[in-house]
Amino acid sequence: MTTTWPKFISANEKGLWMTEDERENLKLDYRIKEIIFEAQSKLQHVMILDSYSFGRMLVLDGVVQTTSLDGHIYNEMIAHVPLSIHQNPKKVLVIGGGDCGVAREVCKHSCVERVEVVEIDQMVVEACLKHLPEVSGGSVDSRVNFIFEDGVKYVENTPNQYDVIIVDSSDPVGPAEVLIEQSFYQSVFNALREDGLMVCQSQSPIFHGEIMEQIYGRVQAIFPHTRMFTTVVPTYPGGLWTFTLGSKAYVEPRLDQWEEKDTRYVNKEMIESCFSLPEFLKKQLVKYERK
Amino acid sequence: MTTTWPKFISANEKGLWMTEDERENLKLDYRIKEIIFEAQSKLQHVMILDSYSFGRMLVLDGVVQTTSLDGHIYNEMIAHVPLSIHQNPKKVLVIGGGDCGVAREVCKHSCVERVEVVEIDQMVVEACLKHLPEVSGGSVDSRVNFIFEDGVKYVENTPNQYDVIIVDSSDPVGPAEVLIEQSFYQSVFNALREDGLMVCQSQSPIFHGEIMEQIYGRVQAIFPHTRMFTTVVPTYPGGLWTFTLGSKAYVEPRLDQWEEKDTRYVNKEMIESCFSLPEFLKKQLVKYERK
Repeated sequence: MTTTWPKFISANEKGLWMTEDERENLKLDYRIKEIIFEAQSKLQHVMILDSYSFGRMLVLDGVVQTTSLDGHIYNEMIAHVPLSIHQNPKKVLVIGGGDCGVAREVCKHSCVERVEVVEIDQMVVEACLKHLPEVSGGSVDSRVNFIFEDGVKYVENTPNQYDVIIVDSSDPVGPAEVLIEQSFYQSVFNALREDGLMVCQSQSPIFHGEIMEQIYGRVQAIFPHTRMFTTVVPTYPGGLWTFTLGSKAYVEPRLDQWEEKDTRYVNKEMIESCFSLPEFLKKQLVKYERK
Repeated sequence: MTTTWPKFISANEKGLWMTEDERENLKLDYRIKEIIFEAQSKLQHVMILDSYSFGRMLVLDGVVQTTSLDGHIYNEMIAHVPLSIHQNPKKVLVIGGGDCGVAREVCKHSCVERVEVVEIDQMVVEACLKHLPEVSGGSVDSRVNFIFEDGVKYVENTPNQYDVIIVDSSDPVGPAEVLIEQSFYQSVFNALREDGLMVCQSQSPIFHGEIMEQIYGRVQAIFPHTRMFTTVVPTYPGGLWTFTLGSKAYVEPRLDQWEEKDTRYVNKEMIESCFSLPEFLKKQLVKYERK
């Protein structure tokens, strides 16, 4: 046997394994049925793998980003919570979101007229549309427009345009680090219309409590209203996940107007309860309460 | 080097690792600072390890059971939710619970007069009290009484004794499988007083949906009232976790009477919101709704 496996893949007597070891103190090995897609883009190593436990999954530079089993939880929460708070969201910007799952959820709101997805890596979008339909939906709604460029630069040049901006970034290390800088949140604020709101993922409160607090503090320094909500990301150790919402006007979900959608995780009760925070998290955020 | 490491432990140039590979398709490697305790009991292999990511943790037969980082979440939820529902819980039985964390939480309710912990493996209790104080508390409240025997047999012989029974079992494979049998739930029902209630952990709805449903169905076949609630277990992939509650009388938490306790995760809002179920879970349980 002289097969050369792609980076991050190894084989033993039980078959193929993908090893995720970007964390210093924890390694995960996923048993793999098949390598569906594998290529090096200009920016990163891109794979779609079919795994035994999680179904197909998107892996960037050896790190699992989303899976068929649970990708919908994150995507539904980051999309439907802000869209149920804004009174009349028509124009939505997604920064990142190359797996197309967030755009897919946004389009379940009939009031939305246009969705711009600014993703830096075209290969991710193409691979997910073709090989990860469980997350991407396999095709794109006609209201969605892809812009393949740097989200940070894009948002600096589009003032006063969007009702809702969703920052669907990977972990804020390396290239994605700029997506948690104060100047970025200021650009996002400027890119929103006068009653606009933004949401970003703000990491695990258990493993990344400091980054989470940094994000919350920076959003709160700019937006009149800041709220945190949580969900689970089952395939990731540290599975409790936070999102930070910054709003110019609206704060409460319009639950009386919630219409049932084709969702697997989100419903009225989940939107209502996601703002209940565990005691340690409430205490951690107390210092940011406005008097 | 001729050091012999205990089972499940290996060493490489980065140090010591504990490998959890009881699942066929997923392996986890935890980097370890130190092996604090290690012995073979009559029943299982028992270790307390100090890990880099999760602090000290209890490992039984190579499977992580609870950690200093997040053990309190599970223990607080399985204890405080039922105790906030029962009107006047005086006598509580914990089946399993060798890490002593559940008994510790139960004792935070001043109305509780006696807690019986029936744990089959005395070594687990002793190791956790001595070496895992973050979970066990390090010492035991005077209201707690340990009984080192088989929980299934114990509960068969104690009819009409308890206000609340908490089944804190490990995964229902191997020895713990009897703890999800219909006859066991019937014994638990009989061991409860006429207004008693029980709670058990009912696994991940994402990875163990069938077992979860089996547990829910069996509890519901016996108890007049059945409810499910969820929490996260961050250190375990599949981190969304379910609990099934079977009650003879009380159903709703008495939140107006909730007094702040020394808890890190649970508060009034978490008890209220934990009964909100994701859409897929609601749909899965619809068939059990009583007409």
